[in-house]
Order: sequence, then C-alpha cells, then structure tokens
Amino acid sequence: MEFTYDARTQELCENLTDFLRTHMEPAEPVFYEQLGQLPNRWAWSEVPVMAELRAEARRRGLWNLFLPGEHGAGLTNLQYAPLAEITGRSGHLAPAIINCGAPDTGNMEVLSMFGTDKQKKEWLEPLLNAEIRSAFAMTEPEVASSDATNITTRIERDGDEYVVNGRKWYISGAMNPNAKILIVMGKTDPTAERHRQQSMILVPRDTPGVDIKRGMQVFGYEDNDHGGHAEIVFDDVRVPAENLIGDEGDGFAISQARLGPGRIHHCMRAVGSAERAIALMCERADQRVAFGKPLSEQGTVREWIAQARVKVEQLRLLTLKTAWLMDTVGNKGAHTEIQAIKIAAPQVVGWIYDKAIQLHGAGGLSQDFPLAQSAALIRTLRIADGPDEVHINSLAKRELRRQAAARNAR
Amino acid sequence: MEFTYDARTQELCENLTDFLRTHMEPAEPVFYEQLGQLPNRWAWSEVPVMAELRAEARRRGLWNLFLPGEHGAGLTNLQYAPLAEITGRSGHLAPAIINCGAPDTGNMEVLSMFGTDKQKKEWLEPLLNAEIRSAFAMTEPEVASSDATNITTRIERDGDEYVVNGRKWYISGAMNPNAKILIVMGKTDPTAERHRQQSMILVPRDTPGVDIKRGMQVFGYEDNDHGGHAEIVFDDVRVPAENLIGDEGDGFAISQARLGPGRIHHCMRAVGSAERAIALMCERADQRVAFGKPLSEQGTVREWIAQARVKVEQLRLLTLKTAWLMDTVGNKGAHTEIQAIKIAAPQVVGWIYDKAIQLHGAGGLSQDFPLAQSAALIRTLRIADGPDEVHINSLAKRELRRQAAARNAR
Amino acid sequence: MEFTYDARTQELCENLTDFLRTHMEPAEPVFYEQLGQLPNRWAWSEVPVMAELRAEARRRGLWNLFLPGEHGAGLTNLQYAPLAEITGRSGHLAPAIINCGAPDTGNMEVLSMFGTDKQKKEWLEPLLNAEIRSAFAMTEPEVASSDATNITTRIERDGDEYVVNGRKWYISGAMNPNAKILIVMGKTDPTAERHRQQSMILVPRDTPGVDIKRGMQVFGYEDNDHGGHAEIVFDDVRVPAENLIGDEGDGFAISQARLGPGRIHHCMRAVGSAERAIALMCERADQRVAFGKPLSEQGTVREWIAQARVKVEQLRLLTLKTAWLMDTVGNKGAHTEIQAIKIAAPQVVGWIYDKAIQLHGAGGLSQDFPLAQSAALIRTLRIADGPDEVHINSLAKRELRRQAAARNAR
Amino acid sequence: MEFTYDARTQELCENLTDFLRTHMEPAEPVFYEQLGQLPNRWAWSEVPVMAELRAEARRRGLWNLFLPGEHGAGLTNLQYAPLAEITGRSGHLAPAIINCGAPDTGNMEVLSMFGTDKQKKEWLEPLLNAEIRSAFAMTEPEVASSDATNITTRIERDGDEYVVNGRKWYISGAMNPNAKILIVMGKTDPTAERHRQQSMILVPRDTPGVDIKRGMQVFGYEDNDHGGHAEIVFDDVRVPAENLIGDEGDGFAISQARLGPGRIHHCMRAVGSAERAIALMCERADQRVAFGKPLSEQGTVREWIAQARVKVEQLRLLTLKTAWLMDTVGNKGAHTEIQAIKIAAPQVVGWIYDKAIQLHGAGGLSQDFPLAQSAALIRTLRIADGPDEVHINSLAKRELRRQAAARNAR
Repeated sequence: MEFTYDARTQELCENLTDFLRTHMEPAEPVFYEQLGQLPNRWAWSEVPVMAELRAEARRRGLWNLFLPGEHGAGLTNLQYAPLAEITGRSGHLAPAIINCGAPDTGNMEVLSMFGTDKQKKEWLEPLLNAEIRSAFAMTEPEVASSDATNITTRIERDGDEYVVNGRKWYISGAMNPNAKILIVMGKTDPTAERHRQQSMILVPRDTPGVDIKRGMQVFGYEDNDHGGHAEIVFDDVRVPAENLIGDEGDGFAISQARLGPGRIHHCMRAVGSAERAIALMCERADQRVAFGKPLSEQGTVREWIAQARVKVEQLRLLTLKTAWLMDTVGNKGAHTEIQAIKIAAPQVVGWIYDKAIQLHGAGGLSQDFPLAQSAALIRTLRIADGPDEVHINSLAKRELRRQAAARNAR
Repeated sequence: MEFTYDARTQELCENLTDFLRTHMEPAEPVFYEQLGQLPNRWAWSEVPVMAELRAEARRRGLWNLFLPGEHGAGLTNLQYAPLAEITGRSGHLAPAIINCGAPDTGNMEVLSMFGTDKQKKEWLEPLLNAEIRSAFAMTEPEVASSDATNITTRIERDGDEYVVNGRKWYISGAMNPNAKILIVMGKTDPTAERHRQQSMILVPRDTPGVDIKRGMQVFGYEDNDHGGHAEIVFDDVRVPAENLIGDEGDGFAISQARLGPGRIHHCMRAVGSAERAIALMCERADQRVAFGKPLSEQGTVREWIAQARVKVEQLRLLTLKTAWLMDTVGNKGAHTEIQAIKIAAPQVVGWIYDKAIQLHGAGGLSQDFPLAQSAALIRTLRIADGPDEVHINSLAKRELRRQAAARNAR
Repeated sequence: MEFTYDARTQELCENLTDFLRTHMEPAEPVFYEQLGQLPNRWAWSEVPVMAELRAEARRRGLWNLFLPGEHGAGLTNLQYAPLAEITGRSGHLAPAIINCGAPDTGNMEVLSMFGTDKQKKEWLEPLLNAEIRSAFAMTEPEVASSDATNITTRIERDGDEYVVNGRKWYISGAMNPNAKILIVMGKTDPTAERHRQQSMILVPRDTPGVDIKRGMQVFGYEDNDHGGHAEIVFDDVRVPAENLIGDEGDGFAISQARLGPGRIHHCMRAVGSAERAIALMCERADQRVAFGKPLSEQGTVREWIAQARVKVEQLRLLTLKTAWLMDTVGNKGAHTEIQAIKIAAPQVVGWIYDKAIQLHGAGGLSQDFPLAQSAALIRTLRIADGPDEVHINSLAKRELRRQAAARNAR
Repeated sequence: MEFTYDARTQELCENLTDFLRTHMEPAEPVFYEQLGQLPNRWAWSEVPVMAELRAEARRRGLWNLFLPGEHGAGLTNLQYAPLAEITGRSGHLAPAIINCGAPDTGNMEVLSMFGTDKQKKEWLEPLLNAEIRSAFAMTEPEVASSDATNITTRIERDGDEYVVNGRKWYISGAMNPNAKILIVMGKTDPTAERHRQQSMILVPRDTPGVDIKRGMQVFGYEDNDHGGHAEIVFDDVRVPAENLIGDEGDGFAISQARLGPGRIHHCMRAVGSAERAIALMCERADQRVAFGKPLSEQGTVREWIAQARVKVEQLRLLTLKTAWLMDTVGNKGAHTEIQAIKIAAPQVVGWIYDKAIQLHGAGGLSQDFPLAQSAALIRTLRIADGPDEVHINSLAKRELRRQAAARNAR
C-alpha cells in the first residue's frame, strides 16, 4: 500500500496545472466574450480562442488523457484521476480544452470499444481530434428512464435501415450545432429479456426527423458554454442498419460499460471542484469581517472548513481506490466502489458548496462567483446516470448478498 | 389555547383560494407570454393581464391584506398568516397580484409607520394603489452588511440636501422601471454609537447619479417577473433633506421594525411553498413507476413524504404562534420567535424541495416544474435579511441570558 | 386561534412546579438511598419516601391528571399536556409520584374504557390509588412484533379458562414485584382477518406458569427505579375466561386506542426533558472556560443552543395541537398528528441530548448528570410502540391518499 | 499508488483472524463467567482464561503488534492498521489479549520513547509482558481539561521528591488492581509558557495518598472488563524525583506524541467495529420479516446498509493513508490527517451504530447484542483525547493558514 502518485502522473499534473494557469485562466474572459458574440449562443466549439487553447494543450501532450489504449494517451484510470481532479478545479472550460469533457469522453470510449472500423473512421477520429462533438441520448421525459425497461424510444428494423421514434431530454451538449453525432438508446425488441431489449444506434444530427426542440435548464442555467441540454424528438428518423453499435440487444450492456469510467471522471472532477470551493471559502473567510472579527475566526465557519477538509480527503481516496480497482480487476470488479463514489461525491461536494455559498452571502448566489453554478452542476450528479436511490438500492443488495455468503462460509 | 382560524380568516382563505384558482391560474401563461413581449423584460408591472387580475382581487377585498391599521385591510398578523401561506403555494405571481409582495410590503410599512404626511402622500398612496413599485437598498457587495456597522454607503448633509454615495446590490425589484422609489440605508454619522450611525432616505429612481448597473442572478435565475435584483451605484446623488425617514440615526431601528413582519410573511409563504412541493411530490410518486412499482410504494420516497409532513406541520405552528405574539406582545416581544422561524423556515422548506427535486429527476431541475426556481428562492432566505448565522448567534445569546436569569431566580 | 393555557392549567402548572421543587427535589437523593437499601432492587414502590410524596401530591390535587372522565382528574389532553411536560423536566420520579407514569397510565385507560365492572373493581381501583402497579406485555424477542400479525404468543380457550403461552421482553415495570397485573397481548385466532387475530387478557403476576426471567437493559441501564424491563415466559398460564378484555379479536383495536394518549404523554414529557437538557447546556456553557473564553461564547456551542430552542418550540406546538385535536375530533381524527409527534419527538430531543452530552464532556456520559440516562430513555422512543419506520410508512401512505383525493377534487 | 496490503500484513491478518475465531470466540463466555466469579469485579487481568489466550497469541507472534521498533513487533503503522481493525471487530477482548489495548499501548509508547533505562526496566518490561497494566491520568472533572492550560493538578518539587495533588476522572483501566502504574499529567510550573507548564510523572498505584474513589459510568456501563474508568484523588502523593518522564515542562509535548498513534488505533478499531455492525445489520435484515417482507427488502433499510458501506470505505482509506503518512513523514507531518480521522471516525461509526440498533429494535438496546455497548464506546471517542470541537477548530486553523500560503504563492 502506497499513497504517492507515480512520476508520469506527477509530471502531467504539473504540466496541466501550469497550462491552466498560464493559458486557460487568462483566456477565460476572452472565451465568454467571444461566445457572446457568436450568432448561435450554443456553438461554443466555434469560439476562436478555444482552438488556440486546444492547440497548445495538444502541443504539451495534454490531450485525450482520459482514454486508455492506443487511441488515447495510454494512461491508467489511476493516472488519469488526479488530472481529472485538476480540470475539475478550473471551472467549466478545462475538460473541453484538453478533449476530456463529457459526454464526448464516454462516446469515444463506446466507439473505441464497440465501434466497427467504419464507425471509428467516421466518428471516433474526428472526435479524438475535437473536430466534432457528440451527444448521448438516453433520458426520456415521460418515464423513469433510470430503469432501462421503461425506455419508450423505438429503434425498428426496416430493410437496410433502422427507424427511430421517441422523445429524449437533457441530452447534454446537443444544442451545439457541432455535435454532429448522437448515440441514441432505444428498444429494438420490447419483448426480449429485460436487459436485452435495448440497442444503441448512431444518428447523425442532420438526419431528417431529428428535431432539436429546446435547451433544458438546470436551476436557471442554460449551460450554453457546454452545448446545453437538449430536448429532442425523433420522428421516423431513418439511418442505415450499419449504424447500430454492436448487435441488437447490446444497448444495456454498452451503457453499463460506458458509465463506469464516466462516473469516476465526474467524481474526480467533483473532488477538484470541492477543492476550489474550499479555497474560495478560506479566502472569503479571511477577508470578510463581521461583528468585530474575520469570518475565519468564527466557530461555525471553522467547523465548515474543517468538515469540508475531512470529507473531501475521504472522498478523494475512495475515488482513487476505485480507479485502481478498475485498472486491476476491471470495471465489473469495481462495480461496488463505482457506485459508492457515485453516491458519495455529490453528497459530500454538495454539502461543501452549500457552506461555501453561505459564506459568500448574496455573492454566493450570483454570477460573480463560480459557486452557485457549480453547485447546480454538482446537484445534477445526484440524478444523472441514474438517481442516487437506484444506486443505493443496488449497492445494498450486493452488500446483503456478500454478507450472506460470508455468514454461510463460517 | 385553540387551533382554529377565526371566521373572517376562513372566509378570506376561501375567497383567496377561489380567486387564485379561477383567475390567477388561467392567467399565468398569459402573464409570461405578455411579459416576454415587452420591450423591457424587467417591466412586469406593465403586463396587461396583471392590471386585470389586480382589479378583480381588489373587487373581492383581497388587497393590502398584509397591512394592519387604517391604510391596509386591518387584519392581525395571525389573520394574515394563512393568507400569506396560500399565496406562497401559488408561485411567483400571487403576492404581487394582491399587492402583498416584497419588498413593497415592507416599504409600505415603513412609510405608514415612520413617514411624514408628505412622504405618505407622495409614495405610500401610489404604493397602496399599486401604481408604482419600490425597492429597499440595504445590502452592499463589498462588506458583510448584515453587520450594520459595516455599511459603507454615505448619506451626508449638505445644506438642504443629503448627498448619497455608495454601491448596493441584490436590490430586489429595482430592475423594474416602475420601481419609482428607493429606500436607501447609509451612514449619516460613522462616529456615532454603533446602532445610531445609520439613516434611511427616500431616493427617487430618476434622481441624477442613480446608476442601475445590472441584474444580479440567483443561481441562473434573473427573476425578471419580480423586477430582478439590481446592482446600483449612487454617485453624488442629491435629494431634499425632507426625504430622510425619521431622524438621523434612526436607520437601524427602522430596519429592525421593518424586518419583523417581513420575515413572518416570507416564512408563511415558505410554508405554502412547502405544501405545494409536497403536493407535487405525492403526485409524481403516484404517477412514476420504476423497477416494477410506483415511486409512492418505495420506502425511501415514503420517508421523504412523511418527514416533509412532520416538519411542515411544526413549522407552520411556530409561524402562527409568532404572528400571534406579534399581535399580542408586539414585534419586540416576539423577537426570539421571529428569529426562530427565520432560521427554521428555509432549513425545513429547503430540505423538502431537495427531496421534491430528487423525486422529479431531471424534470425537477428544469423550467417545466416550479421546483428548481422555488428551491433557489428558498435558498436565498438563508442569506437575505441577515444570514442564518447572525440570527443563530443572537438567538443563542438571548437564550443564555434567559436561562441565567432563571437560574438566579431559583 | 389562541396560544395561552387556560386558567385551570396555569394553576395546576404552578402547583405542580412548586410541589416538585419543594417536595420532590429534596426527596430525590433519599429515594435512591432507600431504594438501594431494599432487599429487592426492583421494588421501587415500596420505597418509604415515595408514599409520603404521593400523599402530598394527592393532597394538592396532583393525582391521576392524565385520566379524562370520572375516574381521573377530568382534564382534557390539552390541559394535561403542559403538566406532563413539567414532569418530563423532573427526571425519573415525577410521573410516578403523581400516578401518571407509564405503563400504568395506559393500562388504567384500557381498563376504564374496556374493562368490565369486575375488572375495574379488581384492578383499576387499586391502580388509581397506586396500591399496585401493572405492566403491558406486547413486545416479543423473536419477531418484529410492531407488525401485530407477527405475534406468536397464543391465548387459547379451554373451557372456562384461557391458556397463555409465549415469550415477551422489554415489559416495562414488570420486574417490580408490586406490578400485580399484566395485560398480555396474544393471538386467539391466527386464522382470522389480520387485525382480528389478537386479544388482550389480564394475567395476575402470581399465576402459575408466569416466569419472570430477567431484567433487560437499555444501554447499560437497568431502570430499576421504574421496575425495569422484564423478559417473561408464559408457560401454560391459565386464567379465567372473564379475564379477557373486550371480546376475542379486539386486541389490536384496544392496543391502538391505548397508544394514542400514551404517545402524547411520552412526547410532552420528552419536551420537558429537552427543556431540562437546554437548561443544563446553558449552565455548563456559562461555567466552563476553554481556550480563553467561556463555552457560551464559542460559535459552535451557540449554534447548538439556538437550534435546540428552535426545534423544541416547534415540537411543543405540534404536541399541543395534537392534544387539542384528540380533544376535539378524537384519537382517530388526530391519527396523523399523533404519528407525527411520535416520529418528531425522539428525533428532536435526541439531537438536543447529543449536544448537551458533548458540551458536558466526560461528565455528560457519567452518572453525575442526568444526560446519558435521559438520552438512553429518549432513544428507546424511536423503537417503543413501533419503530419510527412503521409510523413513517403509515403516515406517508395517508398523506399520499389525502393528496390523491385533493387532486381528484379539483 | 497501490492499495493492497503487503505480504507480512496479509499473513498476520489471517493468523489473527484465525486465532480470534478458533480461540477467542469460544473463550468469550468463559471469560465473562470467570470474571463474574472474581471477588473484585474490576480485576479482569486475573481471569484465568485470559492467561491461556495470551499465551497462545504470543506463541503465534500476535503480541505487541502496535509497537514499532525493537521493543515491539516491528510493524509500521500501515502494517498494524488492518490488524487493529480486526481486533475492533472482535469486541471487548481482542485488543487486550494480544497486548494491544488502550491505555497500555500509549503508555508503553511513552515509556519506550521518553523513559529512562530505569523506568523502562521497572515499568515497560512488565507491561510488554502483560504482567501489569497501567493507566493515564489526564482528564479532570472540574475544568475543560482538553485545554491543557486549564489543568489544576499540581506536581511540585520538594527535595528529592515530587508531590502530586489533584483530582482526575475517567482514568480508564485504573479500577483494575493490576494497573500498577499511573502516568499523571499535572502542572510543575503554572507561570511558564502555556505549553511548558505541564509535566508527566509515574505514580505507582500503591503510593500513599492515591485514593481510587469510584468507577465512572458510560451510558450505564461500568466497563469492568476493561478496568473501568476511575475517579482518583491525589492527596499529597510523594514519588521520587526520578519518576518524572522527561524534563519539567515536557508534559504537553509527550501527551501530543502519545496521542498520535493512540488515535489511529482507536480509529482502525472503530472501522472494524463498524464492519461488525454492518454484518449484524445485514444478518438481522435478512432474518426479520415485517409487513410481508424481510427487512432487507425495505427501501429505508437498504439505504442504511448502502450508506454504511459507502461511509466506512472512505473512513478506512483515510485511516490507512494517515498511518502511511505517520510512517513516511512522521506524526507531526500527519497531524492534519490524524485530526481528520479523529473527527471522522466517531461521526461515521456512530451513525452506523444508530442504524444497526434501530434495525434490531429493542434487542439493539439490550445486553443480548453488542450494539448498544459498542455504540456507547464509539460515543466516547467524540470526547476522549479532546472533544471534536477542539480538533475541528485546530484543523480549520491549519487549513486557513495553508490556503493563505497557497494564495500568496500564486
């Protein structure tokens, strides 16, 4: 047992930290100004400064760090985790700049693992080069779609084509016109065994019948700097049969494979986000004076700061151990721990943001600090990729089985 | 001891409930459509349907219910409380329609209690008739302004005038061009005893030097249907000396007098808001099915619903008792209880909204349900009118004194 | 709506407070010394000073206050509630001294409501005079007996007798040899409809086959000053058929009727207990100095004190309203509120004790302060008369039904 | 970074687990029976079966595992941590059997680090051989003794002797007559700098003037199987000057050195204790049926189990990392993390016990399950070695300093 990062990780951490400080931070206001001037407020990948930042990131070897194997930087999950944490500290832009932003990362993983050569050529390559963006269309407004058997979108074979019909929402990134490809989850066979009913299919954005209705909000935020969260209607959308990912009925299994790494990325970024909140909290507490002494000398404020530190240290370690498990025993072997961090991260980090906001008073709710918007993002993690309650139930079931087995083995 | 509302209250409750259901609810989409078509998105009091609704409310005697005495409807706080609760259930519009919306209510109270005849004629009368709106400029961006000694805005006498200099933010309602009058809190004498340094002064919106900079957000919400939350710079703003409310040095005392009723109104509306959240929670829980049974049959969901009911029942009773104390022993005598509900209401109602959002999944975060926006509003109550921590500290000090006295009396 | 206690209640409150201060408090150490000298440590009703205190209480009219109607003091639940609160402040002895202690109160209620004349004469009268004590044998060690269908104790008719077989535990008061009569819940017909299987029967303590095995502990406490919590085996125990309370199958209904008032008494005493904890907290905080200032000036301690006050004010009001509802619409009409206080009281009061203990350091855990023992008692309330989870589930179900009805009525 | 235990640790874990299962578990009832038959109920080290168990443990190399360096087993903190966890699962006896029980471990550390050769010969050697037991007399009843400047016990030089006067309580283990040596903390110079006023001195139990008054309780428990928690008066107790540990004024520094490892041992055992609680929770949940299904299928119960697992995984990792830091950068370098686990462990494990008790109903509070007693022990950890609030305050201060330094470095 050993708790230091390896040399490559440390070097990349320094490189990334330096890049974000020297390049991204000064460019951040430029990005938002340029974004504001675009005719389409969702088209963030067209912002000129983004291309410059990406070029520099790539030059430094800070590119596709999330992706193991030949297509990516070849890092393990454990090596990538501290890098993801660093991007999580640096707000809304860092992950996208180094081509490590959701949902593209998950989609690239799906294509690299399950895509045909043709699919890889057509969609994975431009994604790896950040020439296009993508979206992942899973959630539906009308059902509890965390239960995959509830999904109502249909993908029906018709000759050499599949016909897609359904309504999806909160499809992150899809308001961006550069999100050229959508991975859509739907049912090919509603009568099959419950986890073999679903399939995934590639639907180019410009296919007739794809109707992008509107951007959904998150606590009033449109998140247009990320491509928003689209509501999309698929109305007799026809795509070639070869657009199916894997075979009919593979949809559920692919989505599970996709979610493992995705969750750990979210959690590591959440750890970084929490670190930023703590830093802001401490700064504010030192600077504000009320009733004769700085906030940093008030007992309640100290309790917040201490508990935040205690909580985030524990959370980080569990995330790192989960990454290590994924590397050593595989995503399946790390299933319990992946669920555990999925449950723990938004709980812990949400608590920290609540206190950070409180310490900033009205400013904490405002557009002048990153707190309220980050808190809203963290809040979504208790719902996205399945609400906490689904994971809690599943984790408990496995614990009960494990304990029953241990009792029987005595 | 008796727990039924009196006959007049019950009758007004029925009248108000009926009015909201038959008139306001159908008009709500119309309001937002008309608001969207205005050239100035902040000018909600110009929305045509608002005038119609107000006329009907007035015709029914549902007008200025919040204001005791001759100028208002003559209700006690205890009588008004259940009415405020009902408006809290009915979203963003009801309080304004019946001329019982913050911050106008507090400002009318100040004018009716402390205004000169001239001030009343000029500003109170049009406010009572909803011809104009108002704002209350207290909070400052650069200091912890819940500690009144921190206030940096200056109000300096110069001949027959006062000159106001300072920066305020989160001045609710002030983005609305119809908010013709601002009550500004500043220091007339920074060397006086700590609670005699402050004064309040009436500053007409169109006075030269009043610079309304921008609308502040709450999470991502602009609250333009309420006139938003302005940042305002006062740069050598000159008003006649007669615009002072009360005497120099009265500012802190007036603000305390203003906040008592204001807080109980917020709390009663919060109770109503919680009731709506519970209603939505129950409806959703009955309608959604996951993993083979409705959410309303899942243990965790039932726990949320039960705890919500248990919490809100307690909160309502404390709010009502506080109203009764204000009526019987005065705002000062009810000081502890006013602080207690100010502390309790956002805690309790915020918890309920968190669960209601979780139960609605992505929808809970969206613009399609009133949950996220109401949760954001409730969140502000832990900061507005002084952050919880200030009230907690003060309430504890009084409890310690009271207990010490009781020990000594034995 | 009105929040003052009526004149009779106020007078009784003063009388009771005076009695406890002038008579009970000085006698408390005497009681424990005399109890320690008894040959049987469970036989608290034989302690000489108890008889003197009871005589004085009775002389003052402080007797059987809990019991409405002819047999008792004729108070309403609302009138009794503040008196129960006062006894809750005064530790382990006050309720028993004024003959208002559990489980005797509930048993007297059952006998007065459902007993035959013969049963009343034989058992109710001596209980009303505190000549004997009683116990209520419901909980079983081997099943989740909060679900009445799980009860395994059998009550079988055999000619003119019933034969009782089963094992019960945590039968409070039953270690006291003066607990002459046990009310036993068991099944007369396991094949009947689920709430008609159970019956209640009077079993005199000295009936052959009644085997009182041992005193169960609560944390490390034996509660011998209350008669402890017995484990009892009933082995072919024969009693006359006329000992049945009500008819065969009435057991569940009687137990429900019994629990309503019992719960509100527990809750009001819990409120009083919380008040005592707050008083001790404030005293300690003023007296102890750490790191240069009294604990009462530390922010965290102030937060505990303030939140304790805020919580207990709400809890008391809900308890009082519940009492009022029981008086005005009956125990059945007050069902939701009774469950609500049953859920809320131990939550709130347990939280307060946790803080009070923490503030007292090691002393808080010790036998030198009443905190740890009271905290243990409060902890039992989350389990006794059905664990929280059962009440939470049931309250949620009713709320869901109520909300569905309201939706349908629109 | 690596998360597997090394080979020696794994082997010792297996050895220890096997020993506890095959030897300690069967001997547990024997121990309590034999303890019950001793004339002195506190004299647990005289229980015959204890000697047998110790001999077997020693034979297996399971002895003094806690102590690094030549005197002990030579393990690192990281290697010892999982072993301590295992003893924490196995209730009240395991640590003592392998000579790794508090407070002896801390006292042995003090003597091995700071003792003179003579002190080591006289006291450390018999402690290492478990021939005698010891106690550590720090806490005082009359002051907040977590603030070392508050300590009132005096250690005054008089010729070749020191004279000790003062009152201590909650001196764990000291009721055991075999606790032959007490390490007493007192002030040699109340006028010195605040952390140089205190000294530590060895006081043999049988020195005239040492008056062991009584055993203090913890939630009703006497803990006589651990030697209880004594109140001791030191009345002109004279010991040779050579009994001082280190120099005059070293007391505070020694106590800090002592507490580091002591805390991590407590925390690792707490992790093991939590694991046992989870195991019991799962077993109970599978076995009990209420309202038609096992408790393990109820949503609320599943939530408890899942959250317990999520919390304990995080806690264990932080404890292990802290152990690793102590090994690599020293106790001082690990100060923040030591405080963090001291804060986190009782919070997390206390929460788990609360749920485990609830799941066991009345049984959870009883002497038939280890839950209530273990919960009481865990509760003491929020007070022992300084209450949480002291550590929270100190950790926050360090975090604020660290963050300020980071800001300045930018």
